[in-house]
Amino acid sequence: MSDDAKPPVEFYFDFSSPYAYFASLRIDDVAKLYERSVVWKPIMLGVVFKTTGATPLLDQPLKGEYAKRDLARTTRLLGVDFRLPSSFPFAAIAPSRLFYWLAQDDAARARAYAKAVFSTAFQESVAVNSPDAAADVAAKLGIDRGAALAACNDPEIKEKLRLANEEAVAIGVCGAPYFIVEGEPFWGNDRLDHLERWLATGGW
Amino acid sequence: MSDDAKPPVEFYFDFSSPYAYFASLRIDDVAKLYERSVVWKPIMLGVVFKTTGATPLLDQPLKGEYAKRDLARTTRLLGVDFRLPSSFPFAAIAPSRLFYWLAQDDAARARAYAKAVFSTAFQESVAVNSPDAAADVAAKLGIDRGAALAACNDPEIKEKLRLANEEAVAIGVCGAPYFIVEGEPFWGNDRLDHLERWLATGGW
Repeated sequence: MSDDAKPPVEFYFDFSSPYAYFASLRIDDVAKLYERSVVWKPIMLGVVFKTTGATPLLDQPLKGEYAKRDLARTTRLLGVDFRLPSSFPFAAIAPSRLFYWLAQDDAARARAYAKAVFSTAFQESVAVNSPDAAADVAAKLGIDRGAALAACNDPEIKEKLRLANEEAVAIGVCGAPYFIVEGEPFWGNDRLDHLERWLATGGW
Repeated sequence: MSDDAKPPVEFYFDFSSPYAYFASLRIDDVAKLYERSVVWKPIMLGVVFKTTGATPLLDQPLKGEYAKRDLARTTRLLGVDFRLPSSFPFAAIAPSRLFYWLAQDDAARARAYAKAVFSTAFQESVAVNSPDAAADVAAKLGIDRGAALAACNDPEIKEKLRLANEEAVAIGVCGAPYFIVEGEPFWGNDRLDHLERWLATGGW
């Protein structure tokens, strides 16, 4: 990024969030229209929920049933592939750690990995929760499977994810997807329209 | 309604919901574009929350702070008046009962009353929770204040609201605003775009 580049869009997400998956398919293109880069930041919604008191959406009475319809309808509207993983919700600790492991050296590779995790979960319907499953996705991208498995248990990598979660709660991230651009927060796939308008107009 | 009129849009709301207030300013116009009427149905979100386990939005850690920003931003985007009532959230039992009392004889008058309750709460910043406050709004529309006060304690009217709440939970209403058109549910002011597209296209 050159010195005069515009501040990036920060994109907070949990790999197990269907609405974050929808947003992941569009956020880079939306940002690019307005000459913004996107910083992808996987976090654990479970940590956020300890603060907000929320529970997984599909498990909630009434809201869970509604959400299933809304997900199906949104899928058809966006014209994207979507299936719930065979086990859902799943705890995405392992792929989140692998993301930060990859991001140490190569942000683009980490992002490619994130996209592969999302498509594995929500297109191939595979819950990417175990270190084995997370390493399998990495291996398909040509990443050393053994090194990936080791990274899942590397204390330094664990600490990176822990800090990402802590930072997210500290700055107010209350769900996923959650975007911040120059201090302005936008929560939810259905706030991408506000975010885009904000980028287009400079705010209102 | 003539026999061949299209089925109406059902609009479930709680008078104390800011997002329902936003939706109340637009839903009639949106429906009218597609030759639909709107059936307004005030309910008590507190009853819904007993089933979903939710708590008032602005009281929730992280989400409450976010919601205040989102409300302010949405207000500016829509170009509408908006202030939180002096006491918030408020329990809108009294105005909800008065709505159903008025709706017995005159749906249009009940709707005019609902709009006045919303503007009193979110433009004049007055919490419309007590029977006195609810009757004051009615009186401004030329409705007999004493009869309105009596209606707040009429067992038959109380039962109407109780049944409306019960029906809402039974059909899956999980928040407010909540719309149903020919069996398809739409939750949230930010689903008005899906609802409009559904009316325009016949669904997808």
